[in-house]
Amino acid sequence: MKTYGYAALAADKPLAPFSFDRRALRANDVAIEILYCGVCHSDLHTARNDWSWTNYPIVVGHEIVGRVIEVGPDVTRHKVGDHVAVGTMVDSCQNCDQCHKGEEQLCREGNTQTFCGVDRITGEPTMGGYAKHIVVREEFVLRVPKGLALAKAGPLLCAGATTYSPLRNWNVGPGSRVGVIGMGGLGHMAIKLAAALGASVTVLSRSPSKEADAKELGADAFLLSSDEKAMVQAGSAFDLIIDTVPTKHDLTPYLPLLDVDGTLCVVGQVGPLDELNSLPLLLGRRRVAGSAIAGIAQTQEMLDFCARKNVLPEVEMIGIDQINEAYERLLRSDVRYRFVIDMASLTQPHVDAA
Amino acid sequence: MKTYGYAALAADKPLAPFSFDRRALRANDVAIEILYCGVCHSDLHTARNDWSWTNYPIVVGHEIVGRVIEVGPDVTRHKVGDHVAVGTMVDSCQNCDQCHKGEEQLCREGNTQTFCGVDRITGEPTMGGYAKHIVVREEFVLRVPKGLALAKAGPLLCAGATTYSPLRNWNVGPGSRVGVIGMGGLGHMAIKLAAALGASVTVLSRSPSKEADAKELGADAFLLSSDEKAMVQAGSAFDLIIDTVPTKHDLTPYLPLLDVDGTLCVVGQVGPLDELNSLPLLLGRRRVAGSAIAGIAQTQEMLDFCARKNVLPEVEMIGIDQINEAYERLLRSDVRYRFVIDMASLTQPHVDAA
Repeated sequence: MKTYGYAALAADKPLAPFSFDRRALRANDVAIEILYCGVCHSDLHTARNDWSWTNYPIVVGHEIVGRVIEVGPDVTRHKVGDHVAVGTMVDSCQNCDQCHKGEEQLCREGNTQTFCGVDRITGEPTMGGYAKHIVVREEFVLRVPKGLALAKAGPLLCAGATTYSPLRNWNVGPGSRVGVIGMGGLGHMAIKLAAALGASVTVLSRSPSKEADAKELGADAFLLSSDEKAMVQAGSAFDLIIDTVPTKHDLTPYLPLLDVDGTLCVVGQVGPLDELNSLPLLLGRRRVAGSAIAGIAQTQEMLDFCARKNVLPEVEMIGIDQINEAYERLLRSDVRYRFVIDMASLTQPHVDAA
Repeated sequence: MKTYGYAALAADKPLAPFSFDRRALRANDVAIEILYCGVCHSDLHTARNDWSWTNYPIVVGHEIVGRVIEVGPDVTRHKVGDHVAVGTMVDSCQNCDQCHKGEEQLCREGNTQTFCGVDRITGEPTMGGYAKHIVVREEFVLRVPKGLALAKAGPLLCAGATTYSPLRNWNVGPGSRVGVIGMGGLGHMAIKLAAALGASVTVLSRSPSKEADAKELGADAFLLSSDEKAMVQAGSAFDLIIDTVPTKHDLTPYLPLLDVDGTLCVVGQVGPLDELNSLPLLLGRRRVAGSAIAGIAQTQEMLDFCARKNVLPEVEMIGIDQINEAYERLLRSDVRYRFVIDMASLTQPHVDAA
């Protein structure tokens, strides 16, 4: 299937119009016309090869919302015209204990990433959602429930799933005391989702200027992490802290804020953290954990939950020709809180040798 | 009550004979003649003020085994002649949620340490077990079950409780895959206790020379942590790793050895650890935790378990006049695996002005 989108052609080049092929539909495949695609930090890291895993050209994007335009003969879950979504993975072995548990993100063979992955059958590189179409096996295509605003749903697929999963896995509900560190794409979803799950939510930040926004997003309280006295007073105040900070930082000051058996779950930074001090871990049997995205069943549960509770990300809609400017603003944290590309802005490249 | 023992008089002085007073028995107190006292690294750290918390003179020791010689009028749990034990704490508020749960080690007000603590009624400093007698409120006096060798039981009170608690709290039993890092006082008990609980136990060490001892202590397998290939092959192989290393070190190489949702529990090092890399935490929803000693109920359960399963530490018996030499050997890790002081070697100081 011929399609087109925007690709990074090299680490130091802006994204540019690009024509490419999607695979022909397999029996269990769904072809999707992409309507919207959220803009995740991972897109930028990959486009610029920050993680040294990028082969060019690469089409990024894994917060995909669209409409089914064709299905393979064995597809039973989706039909032409359905509104659907695709997140950060498009395949897994489907055969290991983790896949059987519906935790495909933890597949023993590794899941197949939506972009920068390798197709399990042909070995071709996978290409993401800054494009007109995508072809995905049906098990990895999610239903967008009725009532969920299509234009805003994209960021749920990564930012939503990434924060919903630890909230659910650590049993957050009414009575839970949840702290959220960082108030970007992930953090603002953590606030909204934890609040919708019934938890008492506190935003921890070094910037007093964030307090008003935090409350508006649904936080019950705001803790200025530079206020030493307030930090001491908040000792043992949380059952779970979701740490969405995407850079190297120090976890230790936050650990005494956890109650006995409480967990700080890292979902933002992928890589080095500062030195850890074991003392607050030992003194409160506290824990540090990590979590990445969610399984397909839990992602579907999250979409259904968001539709039911009317939980939506705060988005700024852009045309795809604004993507390079959006990346610069992303680097400055100048977005409230997630860019979404309106794919109606994407036109077929004029110069297409194919 | 007049008594005597060995005290540190200053950080740079050897331990020396010392006469001092124990408090007069309160209604709920038990007076114990100490028969044996294990030698813990914490004793040495405190005697030498490594943690900057020591007021001199200080009598250390918190692996205490003895015989009841007197009880206060309200004491119901113990009677004269009983063999009993005292561990690392001698009091707590008895009134908070943690104390009510039997987790006095996590008392909201802080538990009262056996030495270097502050008596909750008089404010006097507490003194430990390198002494002829100790007076402790009955709730913090443990029963030594029949059949448990008195001369060897001491190290169970700290090294045993510290390793048994995470094994139980993380539900180790038949089928569990447990790794143990470090093979000193704590590590050798972790091996024995995990094996007795029915787990498959692997010792992780940088020294091939430890393999024979590891197997003798009950380990099923030995993993040379400097063998990169073996470390890769052991990926996702453990449900729980007990890390008993008492110095600053790097946890990150061990994290990929944990299975999904697995935990590395730090029980040795109290203080800084190296930089942590979040990647293996995120990729396997893995966790790092800390744990310190155990509550009284769980400590009693551990003693009863050890009596039933005939689990005992490996000890080297010393006279109290050998304690300073023992400290030097402890610093060189030259002990298999715990020193115990035979308190019969303690004689009343000749020069006693009191």
